[in-house]
Amino acid sequence: MANDILITNIGELATPLGFCPPAGKAAMNRVAVTKDAAVLIRDGTIVYAGPDAGLDEPRIAAERAAAGPGLVHIDAGGRAVVPGFVDSHTHFVFAGYRDDEFLWKAAGLPYMEIHRRGGGIARSVAATRAATKDDLISLGAARLAAMLSLGVTTVEGKSGYGLDLETELRQLEVMRELAARQPVTIVPTFLGPHSIPAEYAGRPSAYIDFVIAEVLPAVAEQRLARFADIFCEKGIFELADSRRYLEAARRLGLGLKLHADEIERIGGAGLAAELGATSADHLLKASAEDIGRMAQAQVVAGCLPLTAFTLREPYADARGMIDAGCALAIASDLNPGSCYSQSIPLACAIAVLYLKLSMEETLTALTLGGAASLGLADRIGSLEPGKAGDLLILEAPSYRFLAYHAGMNIVRSVVKGGRLVHGPAA
Amino acid sequence: MANDILITNIGELATPLGFCPPAGKAAMNRVAVTKDAAVLIRDGTIVYAGPDAGLDEPRIAAERAAAGPGLVHIDAGGRAVVPGFVDSHTHFVFAGYRDDEFLWKAAGLPYMEIHRRGGGIARSVAATRAATKDDLISLGAARLAAMLSLGVTTVEGKSGYGLDLETELRQLEVMRELAARQPVTIVPTFLGPHSIPAEYAGRPSAYIDFVIAEVLPAVAEQRLARFADIFCEKGIFELADSRRYLEAARRLGLGLKLHADEIERIGGAGLAAELGATSADHLLKASAEDIGRMAQAQVVAGCLPLTAFTLREPYADARGMIDAGCALAIASDLNPGSCYSQSIPLACAIAVLYLKLSMEETLTALTLGGAASLGLADRIGSLEPGKAGDLLILEAPSYRFLAYHAGMNIVRSVVKGGRLVHGPAA
Repeated sequence: MANDILITNIGELATPLGFCPPAGKAAMNRVAVTKDAAVLIRDGTIVYAGPDAGLDEPRIAAERAAAGPGLVHIDAGGRAVVPGFVDSHTHFVFAGYRDDEFLWKAAGLPYMEIHRRGGGIARSVAATRAATKDDLISLGAARLAAMLSLGVTTVEGKSGYGLDLETELRQLEVMRELAARQPVTIVPTFLGPHSIPAEYAGRPSAYIDFVIAEVLPAVAEQRLARFADIFCEKGIFELADSRRYLEAARRLGLGLKLHADEIERIGGAGLAAELGATSADHLLKASAEDIGRMAQAQVVAGCLPLTAFTLREPYADARGMIDAGCALAIASDLNPGSCYSQSIPLACAIAVLYLKLSMEETLTALTLGGAASLGLADRIGSLEPGKAGDLLILEAPSYRFLAYHAGMNIVRSVVKGGRLVHGPAA
Repeated sequence: MANDILITNIGELATPLGFCPPAGKAAMNRVAVTKDAAVLIRDGTIVYAGPDAGLDEPRIAAERAAAGPGLVHIDAGGRAVVPGFVDSHTHFVFAGYRDDEFLWKAAGLPYMEIHRRGGGIARSVAATRAATKDDLISLGAARLAAMLSLGVTTVEGKSGYGLDLETELRQLEVMRELAARQPVTIVPTFLGPHSIPAEYAGRPSAYIDFVIAEVLPAVAEQRLARFADIFCEKGIFELADSRRYLEAARRLGLGLKLHADEIERIGGAGLAAELGATSADHLLKASAEDIGRMAQAQVVAGCLPLTAFTLREPYADARGMIDAGCALAIASDLNPGSCYSQSIPLACAIAVLYLKLSMEETLTALTLGGAASLGLADRIGSLEPGKAGDLLILEAPSYRFLAYHAGMNIVRSVVKGGRLVHGPAA
């Protein structure tokens, strides 16, 4: 039998324990910490996660017999174990880098000067359009490998650097290819309305017409995406365009996500609640009323602290979102422009130090919150019987080191679906 | 012949080019960037670093013949190469962790409450006193291995968690042992006056008497340290105690370092200038006048941004220090209390984004500035003929990715003294 694994001598097992009961407040602070624990994964699914004592010798012997020689046994050496991280907002498929532009921004050059020098998302669009599928696969694979080494076992990936039919589909096809080639689970999101392409300059509604008429149906027909997302922002895709795009996507069976109220408050968070979106992300300028509506509608709030760090913006009010009853996901927003980082360790340190989250809330946001943001909270994000066997063995005695060892990657080994896919076995 | 290495196909060779001429302003912004470069290291020392074209076939053939079969050839595959990082301020030899205290502080608990719960440096002192030499070697080795993987080829390490004769010497002995066991060069610093031990509570001057009479002479006699350092701070070791301690250390042949003006402005930076210290670090509250005196006296300014990040303090005015003419070193301050991090990537991102340093200044501060802070600027810190063959091959086309790929470790391979000591050869 494949994907059977027994992990013993876990010094500390830390896992969120479920949240978001229907019509209830999300329980972001509920983390179970078990000392001297063990985990048993059978056929990729957790069958036991709890005290060592609960997995007595007869049961281990029976499992060994059932699994046969395929059962892998890992001695965690007293280390801590947590669920695999879920990075629920990334743009990891792109070509071209913008390191010069990053330094121009860091040096305080005005937006128009950066634009004059050729900065901006259009560069990434041009490079991605010019890239072959193989180029994009190779670039994406390297980024996923880095993420896996940081403990990410499920990642969301968005299109949005094509802004045309062909390249948008190619980005999504690349994710489909990569899903088959490496261990990280990929949840693909169509983000055709990421920006207004040059061909539609000044005509965002016409671009949305095109996306609804030609791109969305192709994406849906080929089942290339699970979600549709839009950059809902003043002067780009405002509420009316966002609403009709998202409604069209919903009719095609796609789940809904929004980049909402990042730069100006136009009510994107409220729209997410109105439409019952799965998540709305960024939210730096969202109103308290709209956050309350999101909580009511059980829209997961996506907090992207690495972007705020890199852009030197104030952080989103993650504390307020949790207090309002939202489920919170913390994600990297990896992209070539505003945030070329997938550093979960840095996001974790910022959450505890600057977002005023507890360690429990931070772990939940990086695991179960991310899972909820992808509609997968019933399958991943915590270490409970019935869930996927995705977990991390940390080079630390406690999961608290995820924040305490600030900015450092303390992931030693990664188990994905019951298979050791990164790091040593002991 | 050992430690001979030839690196070709370097896409970008980036190196600081020297600063701090006698009586001149430090040149922190002078970085040479060479495209299509090669480096040749003979017997651990750089003999060529420059354009590929400068290392023509006859020369390579001659080098091969001279080196014989011992010459290692690395194809950098178009990647960027920079000097090894010099982490010039760390406390990497200690036992015991304070992760709970980190979270208490993050949650905003008042200082006295943290003290009541048993927080503070006394915990680290108790744990380090209780640790055996072997314990400390094992802990220190793991931390050095993490630093090496981040590209640190030279590290300063301080004692200061013993605060008694025996443990202070043991910490320094541990560094001597570790220097012989692993590739990172260790520069040991005696920091007996790191805090006032319980045995001398309320009597800092009596503790300094003890250190001068009993500990310093033992350290000097056994040649266990190259520098002496002190926590010069209001209510701890003020100016008079600091001066007599440092003067005593100087008489014994030790170079001088100070933790200066971190919490309150008492003139530690000015004292560093007066005594001709090699460096003064922290400097969050140092006066502009004292920074000017440091520049005049060529005292290297040590900036520790990870500590400010972790403590949520305002960052030191690194920009002002450079503008005043100081050589600047950026270091991690790795320690179990105020900053359990050795993340050079995070320090680099903070420097460019929040300290208003250019990429050139940041690279210089992490390499040649660190070297100057250890009195080693003539031997390490840049890639020039005659210097040690300490360099990094980055998983990136340009050294700009050190900041752009924010918080991510992009060090692929580490060459130390002409030997590949970490990462793949190609």
